[in-house]
Amino acid sequence: MRKSVYETPLAESVIYNVIRVEGPINRTEVVLKTGFSKSTVSLQINKFIQKGLVYEEQPEGGTTAKRKLRVEINGDAGFVAGIFVGIHKLSVIIFNLKMEVRTEAEHYIESTINPVETNRFIVKKLREALVDAGIEAEALWGIGMGFPFPVNYELGIPDSPPNLPLWEQFPLKSFYEEEFRCPVFIDNDVNVMALGEGYSGAAQAEKDFIFLKVGTGIGAGLFFDGRIYRGAKGSAGDIGHIGIDGEKNLCHCGNAGCLETLAAAPAIAARGLQAAMTEESPLLATIFKSKNSISALDVGNSALQGDMSSIRIIQDSGQKIGMVLAKLVNFANPGMVVIGGGVSKAGNLFLAAIRESIVRRSTHLATIDLIVRFSALGDRCGPIGAGRLAIEEVFSSRRFNRTISENRKD
Amino acid sequence: MRKSVYETPLAESVIYNVIRVEGPINRTEVVLKTGFSKSTVSLQINKFIQKGLVYEEQPEGGTTAKRKLRVEINGDAGFVAGIFVGIHKLSVIIFNLKMEVRTEAEHYIESTINPVETNRFIVKKLREALVDAGIEAEALWGIGMGFPFPVNYELGIPDSPPNLPLWEQFPLKSFYEEEFRCPVFIDNDVNVMALGEGYSGAAQAEKDFIFLKVGTGIGAGLFFDGRIYRGAKGSAGDIGHIGIDGEKNLCHCGNAGCLETLAAAPAIAARGLQAAMTEESPLLATIFKSKNSISALDVGNSALQGDMSSIRIIQDSGQKIGMVLAKLVNFANPGMVVIGGGVSKAGNLFLAAIRESIVRRSTHLATIDLIVRFSALGDRCGPIGAGRLAIEEVFSSRRFNRTISENRKD
Repeated sequence: MRKSVYETPLAESVIYNVIRVEGPINRTEVVLKTGFSKSTVSLQINKFIQKGLVYEEQPEGGTTAKRKLRVEINGDAGFVAGIFVGIHKLSVIIFNLKMEVRTEAEHYIESTINPVETNRFIVKKLREALVDAGIEAEALWGIGMGFPFPVNYELGIPDSPPNLPLWEQFPLKSFYEEEFRCPVFIDNDVNVMALGEGYSGAAQAEKDFIFLKVGTGIGAGLFFDGRIYRGAKGSAGDIGHIGIDGEKNLCHCGNAGCLETLAAAPAIAARGLQAAMTEESPLLATIFKSKNSISALDVGNSALQGDMSSIRIIQDSGQKIGMVLAKLVNFANPGMVVIGGGVSKAGNLFLAAIRESIVRRSTHLATIDLIVRFSALGDRCGPIGAGRLAIEEVFSSRRFNRTISENRKD
Repeated sequence: MRKSVYETPLAESVIYNVIRVEGPINRTEVVLKTGFSKSTVSLQINKFIQKGLVYEEQPEGGTTAKRKLRVEINGDAGFVAGIFVGIHKLSVIIFNLKMEVRTEAEHYIESTINPVETNRFIVKKLREALVDAGIEAEALWGIGMGFPFPVNYELGIPDSPPNLPLWEQFPLKSFYEEEFRCPVFIDNDVNVMALGEGYSGAAQAEKDFIFLKVGTGIGAGLFFDGRIYRGAKGSAGDIGHIGIDGEKNLCHCGNAGCLETLAAAPAIAARGLQAAMTEESPLLATIFKSKNSISALDVGNSALQGDMSSIRIIQDSGQKIGMVLAKLVNFANPGMVVIGGGVSKAGNLFLAAIRESIVRRSTHLATIDLIVRFSALGDRCGPIGAGRLAIEEVFSSRRFNRTISENRKD
């Protein structure tokens, strides 16, 4: 028989997390919110204060009752790092426990070379960030990382990375855990970006939303019932190879009509190149003459400047994405779809085409209150989400006690 | 800022549920599994014994230490009803708290008439079932119900029921709660069926699966991360109106190419009728001559007897369902797809077509371990799932204390 879901309910974990998320908060409020007895709440809060994890408000002239003194977490009791790795860009942010940024940097990297070298470089840049923030490596409570390929989340290793084949089986989690002696959480880029938008960006009020990244590839991070949904093998949200029925373009995966092949940046660039070569678009033709290539960004910029061919290319990409999203919206009934990634820079034209195409082919109930919008965090969405991944993991009920015992100062 | 998810952790609820799901179990094991102290566990278990909710094993000759005596819940401390309402069929089951069946019945109903009359009839049949099982109405701790239309789960009312328009806004939850004075949980048919398969049927080992019902309509119940996923407005799983791109058949919803219009029972029957009229299928032509109509069941039976036209019709339905499922499997990466509903009686031919069509258009990772199979519970899936809905709700941590205080005998 299936076992009901219950988690080990640790008073420490629940009480600390209430203070962390809802603080400043007084003891009476903590009792009401958690259902624990006054004595349990007081005992735990006193322990937290003693360990330097929580601050208590000072009474004004000694007249305030203990139960009314507000407590909040000591944000600088520890730190987490959020690291977001692209093919050519590395972002590193250090947060304290309140998710306040201590330092933030971007670097050029070359991920396609030997993963050992690339990861050594990332280690170096994280150590530099720590120095920059004046934080000892020992003060790191956790590291969250987003990578541009499928990941086995439990093991923390790449899972058949199509664009970085040399990384296959590289033991990311253990590599970084040995290096920094703290728990490390490895996820794919879109899940991490969804976390960023869900906690700090566009979708903070949504319990169910789809984060869609449109760049060189197309992928989605799914946030269902207030948490990342990964699916049975961790491949939930891999929508780049969903087919549009009847489309004939062959994809590198072997199937025809895959969304990614029809609507991602390379498809936009290829159609832009064609419009330049045939001089159907004089603007793209001029760009091509000056630099001998056309990128998706060129097409997006030309569309923003009113070039009709470019507008049609961007609209067509948005429409195809919307055709697939319509089905997924009917299926999953999210409250919001957040669009991010490089192609989202093509602007409202792109967004309008996606929105129209979704609404045209979805049921009334699934779209009546559906919001389709761009990412609020833009390029910072990834590293902020990676930091959030670390925070949510180190303070989860199953890990809380270990986090505290490994990092306590008493 | 988004608030982290934490639930009120009630020691009573957690300890009772561990005993309920894992019992017989001794106190030491409960301490290990819950993380609560020995004294908290003993206190709660003693309270449960006193209230008649839990039985304790009798020591053999007084030599066994208290902590090693196994406890288990008293199944007959209370009862729940599982009620499943179709257009023409009503199923009623009474379970005890261990989900052991106390009585089970099926009745013909006519749901399309006045909902007041239909629901009065259901009340009458539930009262008869209670009498049959020798159970007082006061011993009912909860009622779970599945209806054949979209439902607002929180309010417990129909939400634009397409096939039973007279039921719009009928206050199902309050109607039954006033009648039986216990909490009542109203859901749509496919969610309830998914619960049945997830806890007692084909998908007991799966944390993520899709239950697909193929009958007069097509709909799905989604079981993600170990629980029913309903989406932002409760319409998750409404896949009947997902379109197959390029198909032209107009659907009653106003769009073209909806899956339901192409592959559900009415489509199968219509194509069967055509094959009978044109005598393309001699077998269907004979059936038509004898009863002047062709049903989907006739086509399914003819296919099982080897009629080539019928085989093609059933395969085509399965293939279209698989085309849509392929996209949903890529998106949600379930471990299993369970097929139920009337058309599933068409047998392995139908299942094979669905499976083949999914695999042809899904990514490797999403299908490598995917299981596609028929419902294990068949017609009992609905009422069993409805009872399970009641059990899981009355013992949920947010409702547990109320359940116990309303039903205690001390």
